[in-house]
Amino acid sequence: MNLLNEIMSRHPNAISFAPGAPNPRLSTSLNLSYYIDVYLKYLQTTHGLSEGESQRVLKEYGPSRGLINGLVKRALRTDHGLDVPERGIIITVGAQEALFLVLRVLFASEADTLAVITPCYVGVLGAARLLDIPIIGLREESEGIHFGDLSEAIEILRAQGRRIRALYVAPDFANPSGTVMSLASRRRLLEIAEAEGLIILEDIAYGFTATPGFEFPLLKVLDRSCSVVMIGTFAKVCLPGARVGFAVADQVVELERGRALLLAEMLASAKSMISVNTSPISQAIVAGMLLENDVSIATLGIEGSKLYQENLTYLLALLDQELSGVTGVSWTKPKGGFFVRMGLPIRADRDLLEHCASTFGVLWTPMADFYLDNTGDREIRLSCSYLTTEQIQIGVERLGLFVRSI
Amino acid sequence: MNLLNEIMSRHPNAISFAPGAPNPRLSTSLNLSYYIDVYLKYLQTTHGLSEGESQRVLKEYGPSRGLINGLVKRALRTDHGLDVPERGIIITVGAQEALFLVLRVLFASEADTLAVITPCYVGVLGAARLLDIPIIGLREESEGIHFGDLSEAIEILRAQGRRIRALYVAPDFANPSGTVMSLASRRRLLEIAEAEGLIILEDIAYGFTATPGFEFPLLKVLDRSCSVVMIGTFAKVCLPGARVGFAVADQVVELERGRALLLAEMLASAKSMISVNTSPISQAIVAGMLLENDVSIATLGIEGSKLYQENLTYLLALLDQELSGVTGVSWTKPKGGFFVRMGLPIRADRDLLEHCASTFGVLWTPMADFYLDNTGDREIRLSCSYLTTEQIQIGVERLGLFVRSI
Repeated sequence: MNLLNEIMSRHPNAISFAPGAPNPRLSTSLNLSYYIDVYLKYLQTTHGLSEGESQRVLKEYGPSRGLINGLVKRALRTDHGLDVPERGIIITVGAQEALFLVLRVLFASEADTLAVITPCYVGVLGAARLLDIPIIGLREESEGIHFGDLSEAIEILRAQGRRIRALYVAPDFANPSGTVMSLASRRRLLEIAEAEGLIILEDIAYGFTATPGFEFPLLKVLDRSCSVVMIGTFAKVCLPGARVGFAVADQVVELERGRALLLAEMLASAKSMISVNTSPISQAIVAGMLLENDVSIATLGIEGSKLYQENLTYLLALLDQELSGVTGVSWTKPKGGFFVRMGLPIRADRDLLEHCASTFGVLWTPMADFYLDNTGDREIRLSCSYLTTEQIQIGVERLGLFVRSI
Repeated sequence: MNLLNEIMSRHPNAISFAPGAPNPRLSTSLNLSYYIDVYLKYLQTTHGLSEGESQRVLKEYGPSRGLINGLVKRALRTDHGLDVPERGIIITVGAQEALFLVLRVLFASEADTLAVITPCYVGVLGAARLLDIPIIGLREESEGIHFGDLSEAIEILRAQGRRIRALYVAPDFANPSGTVMSLASRRRLLEIAEAEGLIILEDIAYGFTATPGFEFPLLKVLDRSCSVVMIGTFAKVCLPGARVGFAVADQVVELERGRALLLAEMLASAKSMISVNTSPISQAIVAGMLLENDVSIATLGIEGSKLYQENLTYLLALLDQELSGVTGVSWTKPKGGFFVRMGLPIRADRDLLEHCASTFGVLWTPMADFYLDNTGDREIRLSCSYLTTEQIQIGVERLGLFVRSI
């Protein structure tokens, strides 16, 4: 990340396919105080708070579990028919804090291993490493996960007296691969999770970019054994600057002396020692946006979904036009998400990126860091989310010159 | 914390000396969008950004290290004559995240122990436990720290092949003791830190409540060996809901291959895997408030400082009036901060709190959790920060009835 920022800052005129950030067009003109007022009025009319009391909610500390859990609950029911108890939801400082909290609380023993499908979102690998959690990589297949790798990993760990405690998966347009897990794979994965007692961490960050009507049900929706902890974010659908995400963690955890808590409540307890609570101001902005969009994350994400579909379609069409037939160069053709993954005939390392930036004026993300071994050394990630169509056009022309030069 | 909230919610009419939160009077009427605009204008006039560019700073992701580091740097110079490089400052989700990050990055080996002075802020103990960091407690003395305990702890750990990696201290009106560390103790502590190579984590949360002209210099100001990492927050001085804190960590850390970073840069790298970045919206509000207050945290905190001084003086006067001469009851007389610490003749546990709430209508914080052993079992913490003078008056009357009944 720092490496990319540093190279980008030295090449301000390069077109950068590197940032996986949401498009600024979606957020720049948002009127923040308008949405805050919507939420304050909601607190006043629906929860009976006075003007002063609602201002206090906004400006004081708040509960570690969050303020807007009830609205997220409603949105998940509206969007996915998912019915989870409000107590099973925690509001976090982005999806990243949700991931970090879940890893911290779930992984209690050194025998607990995190399984990931590679290539894997670097935020998961980084959080696990920060917590000294061992990671095992499974290969990806066109339908999502290589089940042979999963079985093998379970057996190998079992023989060592260890286990997969949780498996991280982004079933819809994973970052960076763009892969969608098939319905059959979703069902099979849930069966294995139930049989093995492992937790599935389902990251739904890019699900909203699907063409309407062509989505698969969430793992959490298909889940009958409460094996899934779901992680979501408002950064991609509306406002990265708010830093608001959430986890659905309605697993019952037995404690000593017959007490039981939901996992989300244990996450809140851990959160009280990390960020104390998610800014009520940020939560108010997101809540106001939800209230103005039928309390639906899908509705809130419609404009973005269209934009990202258009950008992705445009990027794929241009790649076909400009790069087809170049020896050793291939790329994925995802149906949603922010990313296209491209294979090169040579090592895609820092030196190549530097050369590509200075000679051709175009940047991308080397994929080595998304893997646990060197299988991704010749792959790059192209993100279409942050660019205008004009930038995509110039960028692909430059990419064409670059790949023909190597 | 949850226990207290739960008991408070069952006794809504009780006066609660429990919350150590800032007074709502200071924040309720703050106009958030006004301060955001101040910051946006500052970005436009001082940094040459266009209106659109400044809106993008507000609404997109930002750097993990923070956006307003330069303003915090200026404030520390104005308020304390402290000159630290901007690179040595990180902006965090409250002081708690700063603490968590510092503990995570500094404690690399199982041989590393955290020393605290008991009674100690529970957020430090909780963060260390969440990271499986061993903790050793040192007693407090009227001048701050019991140096005999410190020497002994150093020797004991050394004999075990371990060491004190860092010592957490709040030298000005510590939570919960209210103690101020003397100038001589500050100097002696810094000498020991330099000799032993240990890091001092200086929490400055309550320093702004000192009577003007009666402050001691910060440890960080006296520090000649770069032994001090300083941790601060904007929650207490202005706006808890923004969740903005910071750390000054300008220690040079040598990495492999001759690279060197400042500690704050390593904290930012860890932060990118926990909260990614502190909300730019929150940072903009705090920055606007700094810009409107001579870029001085002290100026920003003046109104609060007066309020807390008045509340504390009032609480202490009433305690003298209502509780003097009650056998076995004693209390501290701090010169600043939010807290008075009171000894009772009996165990101050959950049952006693429940009894006190239901029979006398007054609440306080049991202090057992601020200790590593049972020395605090008969102590309670009274906070004056969150209450009006009228509530303090009624509360102390009820406390008087309570302590005379035990």
